[in-house]
Amino acid sequence: MSDDGRTLDPTDWEAVRSVGHRMVDTLVDGLRDVRHGPAWSPMPAEVKARFQAPAPRQGRGLEAAWAELQRSVLPYRLGNVHPRFWARVIGTGTVTGVLAAMAAAAMNNNLSGLESAAVHVEAQVVGWLKELMGFPASASGLLTSGCSLANLIGLQVARDSRGGPAVKAEGLQSVPGRLVGYASEEAHSSVARAFAVLGLGNASLRRIPVDESLRMSLPALERAIENDLRAGLRPFCVVGSAGTVNTGATDPLEALADLARARGLVFHVDAAFGAWARISPLLSDQVRGLERADSIAFDLHKWGAVPYGVGCVLVRDAEAHRRTFQASAAYLAPHPRGVSAADYAGHELGPELSRPFRALGPWMAFQEHGLDRLREVVEKNVEQAARVAARVRQEPELELTAPAPLNVVTFRYRGQGLEGADLDALNAEVVMRIQESGVAVPSTTRLRGRTVIRLAIVNHRSLDEDFDVLLDAVLQTGRAVAAQR
Amino acid sequence: MSDDGRTLDPTDWEAVRSVGHRMVDTLVDGLRDVRHGPAWSPMPAEVKARFQAPAPRQGRGLEAAWAELQRSVLPYRLGNVHPRFWARVIGTGTVTGVLAAMAAAAMNNNLSGLESAAVHVEAQVVGWLKELMGFPASASGLLTSGCSLANLIGLQVARDSRGGPAVKAEGLQSVPGRLVGYASEEAHSSVARAFAVLGLGNASLRRIPVDESLRMSLPALERAIENDLRAGLRPFCVVGSAGTVNTGATDPLEALADLARARGLVFHVDAAFGAWARISPLLSDQVRGLERADSIAFDLHKWGAVPYGVGCVLVRDAEAHRRTFQASAAYLAPHPRGVSAADYAGHELGPELSRPFRALGPWMAFQEHGLDRLREVVEKNVEQAARVAARVRQEPELELTAPAPLNVVTFRYRGQGLEGADLDALNAEVVMRIQESGVAVPSTTRLRGRTVIRLAIVNHRSLDEDFDVLLDAVLQTGRAVAAQR
Repeated sequence: MSDDGRTLDPTDWEAVRSVGHRMVDTLVDGLRDVRHGPAWSPMPAEVKARFQAPAPRQGRGLEAAWAELQRSVLPYRLGNVHPRFWARVIGTGTVTGVLAAMAAAAMNNNLSGLESAAVHVEAQVVGWLKELMGFPASASGLLTSGCSLANLIGLQVARDSRGGPAVKAEGLQSVPGRLVGYASEEAHSSVARAFAVLGLGNASLRRIPVDESLRMSLPALERAIENDLRAGLRPFCVVGSAGTVNTGATDPLEALADLARARGLVFHVDAAFGAWARISPLLSDQVRGLERADSIAFDLHKWGAVPYGVGCVLVRDAEAHRRTFQASAAYLAPHPRGVSAADYAGHELGPELSRPFRALGPWMAFQEHGLDRLREVVEKNVEQAARVAARVRQEPELELTAPAPLNVVTFRYRGQGLEGADLDALNAEVVMRIQESGVAVPSTTRLRGRTVIRLAIVNHRSLDEDFDVLLDAVLQTGRAVAAQR
Repeated sequence: MSDDGRTLDPTDWEAVRSVGHRMVDTLVDGLRDVRHGPAWSPMPAEVKARFQAPAPRQGRGLEAAWAELQRSVLPYRLGNVHPRFWARVIGTGTVTGVLAAMAAAAMNNNLSGLESAAVHVEAQVVGWLKELMGFPASASGLLTSGCSLANLIGLQVARDSRGGPAVKAEGLQSVPGRLVGYASEEAHSSVARAFAVLGLGNASLRRIPVDESLRMSLPALERAIENDLRAGLRPFCVVGSAGTVNTGATDPLEALADLARARGLVFHVDAAFGAWARISPLLSDQVRGLERADSIAFDLHKWGAVPYGVGCVLVRDAEAHRRTFQASAAYLAPHPRGVSAADYAGHELGPELSRPFRALGPWMAFQEHGLDRLREVVEKNVEQAARVAARVRQEPELELTAPAPLNVVTFRYRGQGLEGADLDALNAEVVMRIQESGVAVPSTTRLRGRTVIRLAIVNHRSLDEDFDVLLDAVLQTGRAVAAQR
């Protein structure tokens, strides 16, 4: 063979294998021992400076790349693999997910309508998720990079099925009657962003006030729809939240399903992490009605036990889903046999043509852990949230700032005598100091105009004691910050 | 610690390490030896049936999951890691990319505006790509799952910057004057799909005829713009193709840049694989003008030497880019210190909030191989395309069906006496038989109404001899099929 060396394959495969083994050891040990290190470490300026270097002309080889990875990158992970990381809603991942990612990259499948094991794995995983979420087998589904794109896809199907075929063909500017949708004030920012992407406009998502439990107010929703109808607008969908990002509240999904049916609206649910409450008989009541949605979006990289990024959208009307995204191209034309004969439509169910092999991580996780273990972890996290809320209620210096029905707890340090912006600043300072200390990573949010401390617990590594460590740190840091004022 | 076993961590970390080592061996050996196996194998019905099984209640453990992976999944990869796979435009990936994927999953970073090494790695990689593509340091960029989303982002920026702020705020239905854009008939299907996603409508992308080299016809473009202006429509962008998917043709980018400037249009370029021609002085003339685009979209998982899925969008006007996607949410509010203090806007440059760590594969690849080696591979593939075209011209039974300026070659088996649909069917049959044989994976496309055989060469593993194997198979299979008619 005329091998002139112009390849990216190594000349020494044994050397690759050696790096691979050492990498497995380093990464597996790192996860095993993660509890004993800081939850997060800021990157020193001299390390940051290394990332200013230009692209190397000459390759340095794998051994050097691995050394640089260990020196400059691995020590400064985000920290969500740590048992005391509860910022945003960021999943922990698993060590098996690490190995699955390696296998997926080695197969290097592109799920764009060609026949390979990968499309069968994805179909199986989507089938499992349909069953878990109470969707019929006839529904369609797609794995995405996360819930933002899953929401986008669900809402595009809603837009095009209610707006009519002219939307896809001729565009919204050719369609009379402004399409408007509804979500609560507590709905995730990705819903409004999807409205912007889809050309519907941020303001066409009406933000409906919430009740004292931070669930969408049905009377307010009814009023908003009536107002829009009177103004000649075209209500087309209502977006329920199953587990809001701020507090874990869930909108009254059954009532929203009824209302959507009565009004002829599409009912989409953003269930980024709340979807997983469905897998537990102890929790499924919280999200009852989810199974009646026309489409739901949720993540697997949060409570679903796989590394980033894997989300899922399920759409009840598979034909509407496919019609929305179907496109044709000469070079994609299938043949009855061979590589292009796949009975697979993933590339016609979303905006991506080429699609990475996202299904392998979930497929391995379900096989290894089983549904029962996944359910136990979800239940554990919800118990932990309740335990935190209970201790917060008992601590005179702390205040629980919202109900904690699921896995999100919000509270604040009271800071004797402080209020308003001063108290907001104190709580933000407490969170920053705790993050910087490496002890834990809580985050903040704003609730009813006040800055609060927030824990979103989607962490299978957290033990009950970890939350006591955090609450002790909040009390101690709160006192220290208050004393400096 | 109150560890009650409700975790997804293993109890036996040594067992995980052992599976990890065996997995490295199996996957590395698989890539080392890939040449000696079939390029593609259809999955037998009894293996397909395994993917009908429901999700297991009880976990089976990692060892069993790994066994099932080896038994049912690994043997039926798509085949793009094989040296004789040239279907669609599907990259080969590298063994280092496999290890990088493992490390990225172990860090499990979520690039949504929080401070970690991952955001510095992405910024560095995007910086390298800006330099390679001749974009200024002030431009912004984002790694995506692939070119479909990169095109979508570039076109959304174009839509909103030319349509005005009302598009994002109030939606296209509130904006008078239909926005229309232009691309050639040979432009990729993801461009029209992006128009549909963005609410502009498929038909608002005007498909401009091509010249005999399959490049956009400038006079036809001028006429189309004039017609639309006369009809009261609002031309807002022109999309050039750098390396069309059908034949590797590149539109006259310099002239398109001039025209766009003169007309006040945004100039976006879909350079999915053609972008990489820029890194070679031998080839960069083919894509001259790319560096003048307002935005470009391209893939790293094709010629960029990383596994799926990594694409990139670069946008010259960073402010317009950020303005298009910026959204606010209480729980995302940054603080001056700690985890949320990242000087990073990736989650405000596209539709995704949570984003996986796509940059590590390219970062490792650039470090290991260096730009020079990446360039050599691109040049090799282009030389191989020219070599195939030369032999096709010499073979009386074969016909070259379009110029092959870059890395895509189209040709057909002449099939003495056959024409029209019969000859189309013969060529499709030849391709299917060769795919089924496992010898090689070419694909087909339609050119000027005829089915042709197509090789898209973005394969660092291909040797010159591999193409002779394919052409020999085409001749032999073509004769056999013709004889059966």
